Amino acid sequence: MVVACATLSACASAPQTLPVAPASPPAGMQFLYGSGEAAALSVQAFHALLDHVALAVQDRPAESVVLDQNATLERPGFVPCGTKPFAAVFDVDETLILNLGFEYHDARTAKGYDAAAWDAWEKTGAGQVGAVPGAMDAVRGLRALGVTVIFNTNREAVNAGATALAIRNAGLGEAVHGSSLFLKGDDGIGSRKDGRRATIAAKYCVIAMGGDQLGDFSDLFNAGQPVATRRAVVMNGATAKLWGHGWFVLPNPVYGTALKGGFDDVFPTDKRWDMPAVKEAR
Amino acid sequence: MVVACATLSACASAPQTLPVAPASPPAGMQFLYGSGEAAALSVQAFHALLDHVALAVQDRPAESVVLDQNATLERPGFVPCGTKPFAAVFDVDETLILNLGFEYHDARTAKGYDAAAWDAWEKTGAGQVGAVPGAMDAVRGLRALGVTVIFNTNREAVNAGATALAIRNAGLGEAVHGSSLFLKGDDGIGSRKDGRRATIAAKYCVIAMGGDQLGDFSDLFNAGQPVATRRAVVMNGATAKLWGHGWFVLPNPVYGTALKGGFDDVFPTDKRWDMPAVKEAR
Repeated sequence: MVVACATLSACASAPQTLPVAPASPPAGMQFLYGSGEAAALSVQAFHALLDHVALAVQDRPAESVVLDQNATLERPGFVPCGTKPFAAVFDVDETLILNLGFEYHDARTAKGYDAAAWDAWEKTGAGQVGAVPGAMDAVRGLRALGVTVIFNTNREAVNAGATALAIRNAGLGEAVHGSSLFLKGDDGIGSRKDGRRATIAAKYCVIAMGGDQLGDFSDLFNAGQPVATRRAVVMNGATAKLWGHGWFVLPNPVYGTALKGGFDDVFPTDKRWDMPAVKEAR
Repeated sequence: MVVACATLSACASAPQTLPVAPASPPAGMQFLYGSGEAAALSVQAFHALLDHVALAVQDRPAESVVLDQNATLERPGFVPCGTKPFAAVFDVDETLILNLGFEYHDARTAKGYDAAAWDAWEKTGAGQVGAVPGAMDAVRGLRALGVTVIFNTNREAVNAGATALAIRNAGLGEAVHGSSLFLKGDDGIGSRKDGRRATIAAKYCVIAMGGDQLGDFSDLFNAGQPVATRRAVVMNGATAKLWGHGWFVLPNPVYGTALKGGFDDVFPTDKRWDMPAVKEAR
């Protein structure tokens, strides 16, 4: 809550300085939740995903798009498909659903991320979510092709019912904990998703994965690499061919593992520029 | 330039308050220039583009992906292809090249956008650009398919030579003003690109367009619509099927027409949430 102070002395007597609500949402939220540009990026990603899946269903691949247990980013190997039924595996937050209610609250209070608020949101926010642009058409299209849609999220297992409700409210259909819904707490490795992916890939031929964080594709991207190294392996590594060809990224400049790095991490030292000195008039 | 004050009196005697360089780049720049997530989004977009073009080259479409002069977003019509040679048309900044030097300067000075600085950048920054992830492979692949790569940018026509150099330095090959490079000032309608697109589509069968702003696809997206209306037409309008199928979007949460809107524009009124009141202990 934001409290306006009628007088300076009223402010001074408050136990702490309260954050002031900004005049407008931060740029990242304007982009992700308000812009046509971000909507187009998401629709484009889901179009590419459905095109890819339609071909894979016609011509069954030997390998899934889930890395196997011995994989490295330099030498990726994949779980075989065999004759397993097809599935597509998605992260949930900012991949299939937009957490509009929570992010509105976050921006208005301007307090920064608060774990207690997020837990309350998981429990009570199912009515204030939206679908990511293109997501409803994509899950409908996948199911029409006979592909099982599986949700693999780091929302808490104890909140499974409320999360299934949020998914349903977003127009994405049914999610059943343990069969089509996998959550943090389902195994002993916390927010790392490789274990849950292995469980899913043991039963299904996973022909597409979607996420807004690299950890939605492999935990190997979150092994503590320097920022520039992590970006370089995405662009040039042995798994780079998978972007748009089995691995599908949704935009999220609002939170997560993408928002890291100081100036030396983000800007190469040989790409710096300053205004040329202006010549003085004689 | 950022000036540190050794004493308070030295600060007080300064003619104005100088901006202080932030400790790290803003979140949008961390995302776009530093993250693996944004790199993956860009590579994915260029993969989809090249897949689409490879099919179009094999099976010539009747229509280009450039809207015709009578088109509306509700009733889009397209310039016919006839037997014209194939082309792909791209915006330049944050579509094919990353303006690393300028954005570093912008973030460090923390002064906000400055037209004089941008003009100096166009004239002198050709050595401090990078390629958008996936762009080099895409333009190389397009040329190998016999598709002409055309650059349509709002950099100034008077800076044509320096812009062609920046494109070459980014590893994207040759750009020749008037044939493969179109700039602001080439016609009488300023930063609007429909005129230049019509000129290009008169000579070429344009089978793909790439951009980071909706104006890179049609000026109709910038007709002064409310923020939410503009986003809705992107998602649900008659041109929505083109995202990833002829029109290819690159991410840019750093600047441009996506970064607009107050709370009421960005967050639907029925999707707001607040922390439930905590029950007091009795």
